[in-house]
Parts: sequence; structure tokens; C-alpha cells
Amino acid sequence: MSDLSAVKALAFDVGGTVVDWHEGISSQLAGIGKHKGIEADWVALTKAWRIASLQRALGARTADLPRGNIDGVHREMLDKVLDEAGIDGFDDTDREAMTLFWHRLDPWPDAAAGHARLRKKFTVATLTILSISLIVDVSRRAPFHWDAVISCEMLEAYKLDPSVYRHGARLLALEPHQIMMVAAHDMDLAAARKEGMRTGFIHRPREWGEGTTPVQSPDPATDIVADDLNDFAGKLGA
Amino acid sequence: MSDLSAVKALAFDVGGTVVDWHEGISSQLAGIGKHKGIEADWVALTKAWRIASLQRALGARTADLPRGNIDGVHREMLDKVLDEAGIDGFDDTDREAMTLFWHRLDPWPDAAAGHARLRKKFTVATLTILSISLIVDVSRRAPFHWDAVISCEMLEAYKLDPSVYRHGARLLALEPHQIMMVAAHDMDLAAARKEGMRTGFIHRPREWGEGTTPVQSPDPATDIVADDLNDFAGKLGA
Repeated sequence: MSDLSAVKALAFDVGGTVVDWHEGISSQLAGIGKHKGIEADWVALTKAWRIASLQRALGARTADLPRGNIDGVHREMLDKVLDEAGIDGFDDTDREAMTLFWHRLDPWPDAAAGHARLRKKFTVATLTILSISLIVDVSRRAPFHWDAVISCEMLEAYKLDPSVYRHGARLLALEPHQIMMVAAHDMDLAAARKEGMRTGFIHRPREWGEGTTPVQSPDPATDIVADDLNDFAGKLGA
Repeated sequence: MSDLSAVKALAFDVGGTVVDWHEGISSQLAGIGKHKGIEADWVALTKAWRIASLQRALGARTADLPRGNIDGVHREMLDKVLDEAGIDGFDDTDREAMTLFWHRLDPWPDAAAGHARLRKKFTVATLTILSISLIVDVSRRAPFHWDAVISCEMLEAYKLDPSVYRHGARLLALEPHQIMMVAAHDMDLAAARKEGMRTGFIHRPREWGEGTTPVQSPDPATDIVADDLNDFAGKLGA
């Protein structure tokens, strides 16, 4: 393990790392489907929605995204995946409400307690593709108290653009090596590491749902690998 | 009093409204002066530093400011006011440390408790010319738990540019009339009101120090006028 004594701040990925989007979205989709009398494979639709949204947002220039944020992306990609699944029973009002399902995600069971422990020792910020208002909404539910909500919405570009990590560090007034990027996704950590950040990997084997083979495994260069945020806090002495 | 039922979020000015910069800066300046054996009118220097920094930052394009934030402005204006006062005993290391005095301001006595009450009912964000890292540092001391730290550092321009208020509202995913700007400064509230925000004025008669005639008084169009943040919370039913 490398020397982590310089680390002053943790920069958290949120979707999948601290909140469970798969369960949150699939259950809310099933709910509105039942309410509207529409049957579909909501789990498959959830995955398709997430994948399409990531493909649209990752690496994009912020100015090129609808509404300039992930809410606009979610709204646009919802139309796409519903269309592809041949589902046309949801009107515009439904679709706006469904876009806000992402604002009502719950944290993983360990996340709020682990987060609170970490915040006693570190500045704890987000560095996320999710929108500021989405982070505000899920964080008031959890609750998470972020020292700062840094979203790609306020930067020029989206992850995995290298500028995201440099710009995030600058807004925290820290050098990259004073920040540990924390994520359940190795590609995010690899991009952060390339810009000089430390890295913490959180195993979230159920991110894509029950029985899914974990596709994420940490690079050997990862500074800390943890099973959840309590384990992570313990490994950082928090 | 106008109908405030649509207000979902409070956007706070910070310097002077929730933290006491005058006492915090003048006492720290006196401390480093004593340490270095330098005598000066630290209260006058504090006021001159604040005024010069406001003149430099207000209305500026973010890209035109040193370091793109208030820390760069404070550093540059410190040189100016020390020079004008004929004080040359502080070296570069001292001046960098003095710039960080602004990160160690304390809240007004009512502010942390009032803030916590307000946050139970409203989304509570900053909308400030101060830098993100400055807000992080003073908020960990206070403590304040902001739902989101919105700083002109992440926008294109500084107050009182009208775009600041519109851009802040957009980042909170709210219409201006769903946000109440809260400040001890009528010009800030006037600019916010012009963009459609509701306004809350907090009396801070000692912002510029003991015995100073209050220069700020609320416009009659102000929605809420309060003596401090506890009074303000009470008037908003929080």
C-alpha cells in the first residue's frame, strides 16, 4: 500500500458506489408499470436505460448534453429504451416523473454510516456524472453530508475526460495526490490515477442486480480495496 | 408578505451573512503582526482588504480573476493594501498564510443553530463569491451542512452579474421563484429579486466592526427581514 498520509479529501463516485440504482430504478419502474397497467421486463429496461445513459454522457462535453446534465440524458435515453422495447403507454408527464426516479435512489446499507465515519477525518466530496439536484435529493434521503457536491454538470466535460479530475482537484484547492477518488468502477479509478489521484475501490457485486457476474475488479495499482464503506473507513483509519 | 409557499431552497450569501469576517480577519492579522513584531491598524487594514477584494471580484468574469477565485483575489489585494499602508515586513510565506485567514472565519453566534433548523425544511445551498475550498473549511468549523456549495468560482461570472442568479437556480433545478436568496446585503438581494428570486434580509449591524453605522437596510420589497438566522428560521416556520 502506498503512502496515503498526504490524502486530505475523498472524491466519491455516487451512482453504484454509494447508491443502488439498479434496485431503486427497477422497483420504481415496476411500480409505475403496475399503476398504468403496462407489463414489461423492468429489470432489463433498467439495465438498458443505465447503459444508454452512460454511453451518452461518458466523455461528452457538458454543453452537448440535453439540459447540460444527467437528468436531460436520462429523459432522452428513456424515450430511446422505451421505443426499443416497444412500450408506448407512458405519456410526457409519466416520463418526466420517471426521470426523477433517479432522484429517489437509496444508499447501499453500509453507505450512510461509512460516509459519516470518513467525514470526521477527511473532506468528503462528490465527483460524479450525476446532477447537483440529483445528489441533493438522494443525499437528503440517505442522509449524506457532503462537504462539496462537485458534478460534471459544473465542469466542461464528463468522466472519463482527464480534465474532470484536474478541474475537480482545482475546485477543492488540492493537488491530485492529496485526493483519493473512490468508486466501484475501475475505469473511473484508472482515469483518476492517470491524473495523479490516489484510488479506492469499493466492491459492489450487486450493482447490476442479483446474480450478475461482477464485471468490475480493481487494478493492482489501486491504493485501497474494500468490501463496503465501513470496511473502507476502517482501512483508512477513520 | 408575499406568498412564499413555492420556496423550496435557500441560497445563502456567506461572507458577512453567516460568518463574521471582520472579527476573524482583524484578530488573525493582529496575531501574525504581534508574532512578526509589526504594528499597524489591523482593523483599518481588514476593512481596506475587504473593500479592495470586493471591488476586484464583484461583477468580474471568473476567468479574469487570479486563480479564478476569491483566494487569488485576496492574495493579490493583500499585496495592494499592505503596500498602501507602507507595511513590508511580511514575506511570501506569510502572505500565503494570511490569505488562508479567510478559511478560518467563525460563524455569527446564531448561525449554526439557525442554519440547522432551516435545513430541516429547505434545501440549503450557498450562492457566494467565496471559493469552494473556503466554504468547505469554514463550514467544517461551524459546522454548516450545505446541501450544495454553489460558488461563483464554478460559474462564468461573479455577483452582481445577473447570470449568477439564473445559473445558480439552474444548478439547483429550480425556477427562481422557488429560491430565496438570503443575505445581509441589499444589493445582492436586489440583483436576485430582479432575476425572480424571493429575498431574505439578515441584519448584521456589526459586519464592519464595533460602532460602525449599519450601511445596509432592506428594500421594502424584501420578503423576509430578520435579526439573525434563528429569527429568520422562525419567520419561515422552520
